[in-house]
Amino acid sequence: MSDHDPAASYPADDPVLSLLARLGDVARAETLPRFRRTGVGENKAAGSGRAFDPVTEADRASEAAIRALLAAEAPDDGILGEEEAAKEGTSGATWVVDPIDGTRAFVSGIPLWGTLIARDDGSRASHALVDHPALGERFLAKAGLGAWMLRDSEAARIGVSGTTRLADATLITTAPELFDGAGAGAFETARRRARLTRYGTDCYGYALVALGTADIVIETGLAAYDIAAPKALVEAAGGVVTDWRGGDCRWGGSTIAAATPELHAEALALFSEA
Amino acid sequence: MSDHDPAASYPADDPVLSLLARLGDVARAETLPRFRRTGVGENKAAGSGRAFDPVTEADRASEAAIRALLAAEAPDDGILGEEEAAKEGTSGATWVVDPIDGTRAFVSGIPLWGTLIARDDGSRASHALVDHPALGERFLAKAGLGAWMLRDSEAARIGVSGTTRLADATLITTAPELFDGAGAGAFETARRRARLTRYGTDCYGYALVALGTADIVIETGLAAYDIAAPKALVEAAGGVVTDWRGGDCRWGGSTIAAATPELHAEALALFSEA
Repeated sequence: MSDHDPAASYPADDPVLSLLARLGDVARAETLPRFRRTGVGENKAAGSGRAFDPVTEADRASEAAIRALLAAEAPDDGILGEEEAAKEGTSGATWVVDPIDGTRAFVSGIPLWGTLIARDDGSRASHALVDHPALGERFLAKAGLGAWMLRDSEAARIGVSGTTRLADATLITTAPELFDGAGAGAFETARRRARLTRYGTDCYGYALVALGTADIVIETGLAAYDIAAPKALVEAAGGVVTDWRGGDCRWGGSTIAAATPELHAEALALFSEA
Repeated sequence: MSDHDPAASYPADDPVLSLLARLGDVARAETLPRFRRTGVGENKAAGSGRAFDPVTEADRASEAAIRALLAAEAPDDGILGEEEAAKEGTSGATWVVDPIDGTRAFVSGIPLWGTLIARDDGSRASHALVDHPALGERFLAKAGLGAWMLRDSEAARIGVSGTTRLADATLITTAPELFDGAGAGAFETARRRARLTRYGTDCYGYALVALGTADIVIETGLAAYDIAAPKALVEAAGGVVTDWRGGDCRWGGSTIAAATPELHAEALALFSEA
């Protein structure tokens, strides 16, 4: 567990966290009823050789619902989402939205997909939601305050593990073939060093690091909407999240999210040349 | 969906299915309370170079509870389980038990682990349970009759997809590095042909094929307790499950579980030389 005060209760009166929870609710109303319905993957029967791009009705309807609520509740803020064009704001704040992270999991019937929403205040994501409707698990975080898991409307404070070495770590990534070149070599080294490695988790891997049941996520090729909320969640739970050079990754790229500075440094040494 | 009668209701009065459900309940009482508790992985702090083998308290307590109920309810049957020595029976029937399939998922906090129990009548698994306590999803199957998913005590008849080509298929395996030699090459070919590929599911992949949201699972190095119940589930849902030579795989080995005969044949052509 992190050194955050484990007794701090969920700040239910925080207006941004409350709005994030409502945004999660409207997104869930669009995503969950469509989960495991046939025909959600538009290219299901496409016979062409192009790569599968599972943009679903659920994705679009979820982002539209999120944008509609933001237009009403935070009209001066910008919005950067996966499905629609970016909206410029005047407040300096930007909502970074992935209506369904893990669309491939979604179309495969795997319940680990999530909705990611972060509020970026211009220098960092100050608040974040990582919501897993099919699991009934919701993660909310406020920078500098803490991270919570909500299940059945009960909020539990969460924090990262104390794992300091890859040899003791559970390592997570979505799929090893997403790494190439020097990144593939670095990942293979990390995988061989790690205590165990798990795949296929998408955004849920970051939630597990925040929860303290996994220790490190390493990924590449992320967009801002993939990483903004997970990064804020892991950091608020006590972890360290940067790109492979040790810099800010909140606008995307290649990332390391680790439970402790020591574990982060060991991974950074492998990937900083990749 | 398969060509089974989709209107057939769950046979709640089947004595073997009823016993399987009770076995799932006693196993769940040992596994679920220990999920995400720290210290379940015995080798968490082990500094030696040996491979991680996450035999947990939950695994052993779950199998002990299953064996105790079987001793009371089916004393003449044999038991083949992961944790304890095989018990010889006199009836000709054998219960094949994996108290926690996906132990690595379990210790990582990933809710896709399951309890697998099949009753083998000497020629095949006649009944099977694939139970996912952390997801609240239970799959039950009876050979020649059908397969059902139970959630919140509601039973829904399930069946495989109609997918006939890898190019249209969602392919699942636990981790690509588990294949070696010619198997690794065959898997890479299958992955490149498939519409999409997902990792990290353990036994849940078979449930997804039975559910019709994924189309094919290909694995290697399985024990009888890994495959007996998943095989029976996929077959009862209308799918085809064999080893890489097209033979019976219920005692373990390398397996292909496909939604349709055509999809199975395409995969078999890739793996039969591996």
